[in-house]
Amino acid sequence: MNISGKHYRTIWPIEAGGVRVIDQSRLPFEFATLDLQSLDDAAQAIRTMVVRGAPLIGATAAYGLALALRSDPSDEHLAAASAALQATRPTAHNLGWALATMRGAVSDAALPERARAAFDAAARICDADVEQCRAIGLHGLEIIRRLAKTLNRRVNILTHCNAGWLACVDWGTALSPVYMAHDAGIPVHVWVDETRPRNQGAALTAFELAAHGVPHTVIADNLGGYLMQRGEVDMVMVGSDRTTAAGDVCNKVGTYLKALAAHDNDVPFYVALPANTIDWSLERGEDIPIEERSAAELTHMTGRTSGGELATVRVVPESSPVLNVAFDVTPARLVTALITERGVCRASHAGLAGLYALRQAAS
Amino acid sequence: MNISGKHYRTIWPIEAGGVRVIDQSRLPFEFATLDLQSLDDAAQAIRTMVVRGAPLIGATAAYGLALALRSDPSDEHLAAASAALQATRPTAHNLGWALATMRGAVSDAALPERARAAFDAAARICDADVEQCRAIGLHGLEIIRRLAKTLNRRVNILTHCNAGWLACVDWGTALSPVYMAHDAGIPVHVWVDETRPRNQGAALTAFELAAHGVPHTVIADNLGGYLMQRGEVDMVMVGSDRTTAAGDVCNKVGTYLKALAAHDNDVPFYVALPANTIDWSLERGEDIPIEERSAAELTHMTGRTSGGELATVRVVPESSPVLNVAFDVTPARLVTALITERGVCRASHAGLAGLYALRQAAS
Repeated sequence: MNISGKHYRTIWPIEAGGVRVIDQSRLPFEFATLDLQSLDDAAQAIRTMVVRGAPLIGATAAYGLALALRSDPSDEHLAAASAALQATRPTAHNLGWALATMRGAVSDAALPERARAAFDAAARICDADVEQCRAIGLHGLEIIRRLAKTLNRRVNILTHCNAGWLACVDWGTALSPVYMAHDAGIPVHVWVDETRPRNQGAALTAFELAAHGVPHTVIADNLGGYLMQRGEVDMVMVGSDRTTAAGDVCNKVGTYLKALAAHDNDVPFYVALPANTIDWSLERGEDIPIEERSAAELTHMTGRTSGGELATVRVVPESSPVLNVAFDVTPARLVTALITERGVCRASHAGLAGLYALRQAAS
Repeated sequence: MNISGKHYRTIWPIEAGGVRVIDQSRLPFEFATLDLQSLDDAAQAIRTMVVRGAPLIGATAAYGLALALRSDPSDEHLAAASAALQATRPTAHNLGWALATMRGAVSDAALPERARAAFDAAARICDADVEQCRAIGLHGLEIIRRLAKTLNRRVNILTHCNAGWLACVDWGTALSPVYMAHDAGIPVHVWVDETRPRNQGAALTAFELAAHGVPHTVIADNLGGYLMQRGEVDMVMVGSDRTTAAGDVCNKVGTYLKALAAHDNDVPFYVALPANTIDWSLERGEDIPIEERSAAELTHMTGRTSGGELATVRVVPESSPVLNVAFDVTPARLVTALITERGVCRASHAGLAGLYALRQAAS
């Protein structure tokens, strides 16, 4: 996607030999990039959420393994680096998928060839992600197009967190159909959940949509139910960090509440995801490992003062303990459909089998 | 309730002739009071949320009318002052109730007696509020006591926004049973929703509970559903700004989402309110006027820097529009029971009729 007229991906190799990423911890206040030169750089970028979003976590881990093999291509280091990257964040399934894919791509290569093979494999993962997100966009576009025809007015889409191009390598998952609809001249408007505690909606989704000129309105996470009761939401579209073989969807905490409200108000609830977000080994959403993060994400907020500087303030009294859990699980029964790179399906074994027959048979 | 060992109400007349309130816009960072000397002072205190919470809005409006009559006791000024106070905030039913009660109490008085009569009537409204909240606490206490006996462990109570003593004159509505349970030695723990955009949970409820020593944990508004799915919430207890004759509950935006999650997880959902929060003239929650407030409440946050000063930062990009609606409506079907000063009842015509037969017949 474009920032000030220049096309960007969220991660790309640089000629000097490392990898460059957009530093998302500084958005929306500052657009800056950060260079990753080592395994530690990559692990830290994932852990501190310089990069985030399930597909981009996978892509960064892939390049992280390539950076690791550049300094030491041994089997031992491959295993250790893979374990270190796997430990950065527990929930996004794409992380484990990308690392397994990378190990498969390099383990047969001779040691002197491994780093080069790893960079090539990471680049293929990134290119495939772009292509998958583009395909998700095209499938989702048809849903929005039909809805726009039925409604014969602007389509109001609510999204939670950021599942746009900043969460992927390009295009996004949940926002890819939105960009395509907007570019196709279909009038769309996005309700952007602020997404406490890290404000990925207000900070990243709003930034993305504004940069692309898509009409949108930032709202408190608390408001979506009210808007659905009043008929102001025509569809909900979110991403996923891990989806089970039975269609349960793990996504940013608060997604479940929006799914309940959508269900209660007959608003369709779509989840957009590439196949590598699906954990074929799990049936029940309750079995997905859920990340707990630092209390500081809730107790402190960073923003710009009227003088223009960035400042961090404490907004919760020091005398009060805090719990910060990053994800929740939306049961398949609340999901209208999954939108994947292969098409649209019910959030169920049968639905996924229709699109991924071979994959399921193999697992 | 006590602050640093000293008993406070949230509003009280002072010897100099005006009225003193706790300035809630400065909590939790600073405990300060503000003196109201005129109608304008009172109207501004309500509008800017120096005082807030349906019962306290009513009490402040009552004293606002008394202050107005002190400067001009005429019928014209009584009507104009009442209209000005009514216009400060649209949703809380207690506001209109308190103003009507005040007009009834003073309109027959001779002009020179009106201000005195008004101060007396306002004091009676405050005393009655304290008594009602105490009664709500005693009725709610029995619910918590039974639950504690069944569970035989700590009772986890989730609350949204602030319906504690800061929202009333003393005790609170939703928190009154919590304080009484804690004081009775029943182990309780409160999940405190942050309550964006104004953070009344993190700022006021956490402050209250900490000051009284009640165990609690501040969470993002997004987390309640997850906690209910995991069995970490035994009951939800909230207040109300207006409740219809059929039991629909208007409360801080986001309450509806928690009611949906409670229903989906078989967690009892209680609403605590005094009778003057009930709008007997309305049936359907959809007909309750819902307040829209300034975008700045969402775009900016105030907190304490590491250096100790208060600072306000912008957290939403300037390029993004914002919508800030302050309340939503929870339909009666999602409410387990109402807890009023007269007892506990179903959220329905029949339920309320059992407690308020005369009131309903008269309306």
